[in-house]
Amino acid sequence: MTATLIPIRQGRPPSLDALMTLVSQDMHAVNRVILDRMQSQVPLIPELAGHLIAGGGKRMRPMLTLACARLLEYPGTRHHMLAAAVEFIHTATLLHDDVVDGSGQRRGKRTANMIWGNGPSVLVGDFLLSRGFELMVEDGSLRVLKILSHASAVIAEGEVEQLSAQRRVETAEAQYLKIIDAKTAALFAAACRISAVVAERDAATEAALDNYGRYLGIAFQLVDDAMDYASDAAVMGKDTGDDFRDGKVTLPVILAFARGTTEDRKFWRDAMEGRRASDADLAHATTLLQDTHAIADTVARARHYGQRAIDALSGIGSGPARAALVEAVEFAISRAY
Amino acid sequence: MTATLIPIRQGRPPSLDALMTLVSQDMHAVNRVILDRMQSQVPLIPELAGHLIAGGGKRMRPMLTLACARLLEYPGTRHHMLAAAVEFIHTATLLHDDVVDGSGQRRGKRTANMIWGNGPSVLVGDFLLSRGFELMVEDGSLRVLKILSHASAVIAEGEVEQLSAQRRVETAEAQYLKIIDAKTAALFAAACRISAVVAERDAATEAALDNYGRYLGIAFQLVDDAMDYASDAAVMGKDTGDDFRDGKVTLPVILAFARGTTEDRKFWRDAMEGRRASDADLAHATTLLQDTHAIADTVARARHYGQRAIDALSGIGSGPARAALVEAVEFAISRAY
Repeated sequence: MTATLIPIRQGRPPSLDALMTLVSQDMHAVNRVILDRMQSQVPLIPELAGHLIAGGGKRMRPMLTLACARLLEYPGTRHHMLAAAVEFIHTATLLHDDVVDGSGQRRGKRTANMIWGNGPSVLVGDFLLSRGFELMVEDGSLRVLKILSHASAVIAEGEVEQLSAQRRVETAEAQYLKIIDAKTAALFAAACRISAVVAERDAATEAALDNYGRYLGIAFQLVDDAMDYASDAAVMGKDTGDDFRDGKVTLPVILAFARGTTEDRKFWRDAMEGRRASDADLAHATTLLQDTHAIADTVARARHYGQRAIDALSGIGSGPARAALVEAVEFAISRAY
Repeated sequence: MTATLIPIRQGRPPSLDALMTLVSQDMHAVNRVILDRMQSQVPLIPELAGHLIAGGGKRMRPMLTLACARLLEYPGTRHHMLAAAVEFIHTATLLHDDVVDGSGQRRGKRTANMIWGNGPSVLVGDFLLSRGFELMVEDGSLRVLKILSHASAVIAEGEVEQLSAQRRVETAEAQYLKIIDAKTAALFAAACRISAVVAERDAATEAALDNYGRYLGIAFQLVDDAMDYASDAAVMGKDTGDDFRDGKVTLPVILAFARGTTEDRKFWRDAMEGRRASDADLAHATTLLQDTHAIADTVARARHYGQRAIDALSGIGSGPARAALVEAVEFAISRAY
């Protein structure tokens, strides 16, 4: 079944290598913009922002802007500044998320809120978000500004809705998908869509790249959610079971709850409401997730969205750019194995 | 000495009444935009935003946009949406400030972070900031977008610098003025400046209105700082002595420290570093501020900036709009008496 999605690549597992190679020259330019524009006469700003920005993130979203522009054979350099703006928006949301969740670790490092406190994290996030808008204004495309200001509002809406759903084990799969569509996939979609704007392509191409990014973003998030129960800190850069202990109702939990016995449901309710957070409880949760095939089916859902991401590229471009974008999807899914 | 600044107004003390009357029709339109655009399918967003937005603020910044547009005899309605955008940016900063400061009260009501927690306050602030940008994009002026995205970044920089200066009693007056120029005056300046953009006036008019707003903002902030030691919660809508207990080094403290004896300086250092926060300590602080004329001289500094605000309007417009803008300055200063 996976064979339709993941063509055999001479035995090599899918990776982001092709994507990174494809955009490496452009990415140097983007990194220069990022480093240049995160500067401020207030030293704490580049210090705190740099901790996260230099902290080993994949730069997935700016890479997508660059790769999609390459797919469309865009010959210019406008997208360098815009890819940096996308990364600034993303970094701002990470800083704020870690404050909201009280997270202690991200990408294997202590979070900024743990090192400098909540106040600086909130304010430097605000600075980066504003600086991102300044970069877009400098580029001067109202269309790009519209796409990214809307994405930014949608992300915040999704985060608030996630907070509202937190600890509510009855969250429906549809509501959950709506949340991750907003909080994660919207920026993936926008990052891809703006490449069609700078390349001056038609609305259909814009929509297709938006779909590619959106479905890829959903696939990434679903696999992350599965891995939170099935991975370890060394791989994830965060602690396994974080979602469990925070009462984050993700798709694995939604499926296991729906498929569980009365007793299982009581366990999930207690767990999500914070009354079962020990290592033994996490072990029991993992057993229930296995028994109900909740992890495997979360990954199957991710594979479905991954396939839709690949299909969205039908008829657009060819060559190494297309292959790299397809492999990025396969990579997103493959992390679950 | 005050007579040169505050002309006798038939015995009536200065107020914002003239300004509010001048813009009341336009303000209804702005309020409709604000109420319409703070909506979301996520109910917590309008609930939390509405708590602050409906919570009795003066809407000073959008009033300034409207009044300056009236001063320039701008005949259109574009500024309604932009004034709402300015208020969204301002509301976002208030929500985030209260999280950063852990404030419990604002405008005489419990703060959103006390009612709903830090997470929702951070995220709804992000939503409002993004929504503000969406409004500007809808208006379509890149010049306005540039002015307000820059102001937004400068505000965040100012807030971070204020955090860095917190509890540092050696903060210089010049640094302090730079901080309030960024965290408060920049948005006042931008709110006024954009009226010249929509009215399609020249750079000199833009700069003059920017100066008016900037100096008015500094005057407002300095008087607020003075009142924190000289007012009560019923007037301020926040508790007297909040700055003292938070170790906020404002101009009154900077002056009292600079002019104090060795013993006084030790007291201020201890107080700002959090080792003297009792009511008796606050009373002693107030005595020191009186003895060194620190409060009176903070108000004198405010009067200086107020005069510069009024001078900035020289040669621009006339009639009720001009009179209302001048009286707004007089009102800002008069609150200290």
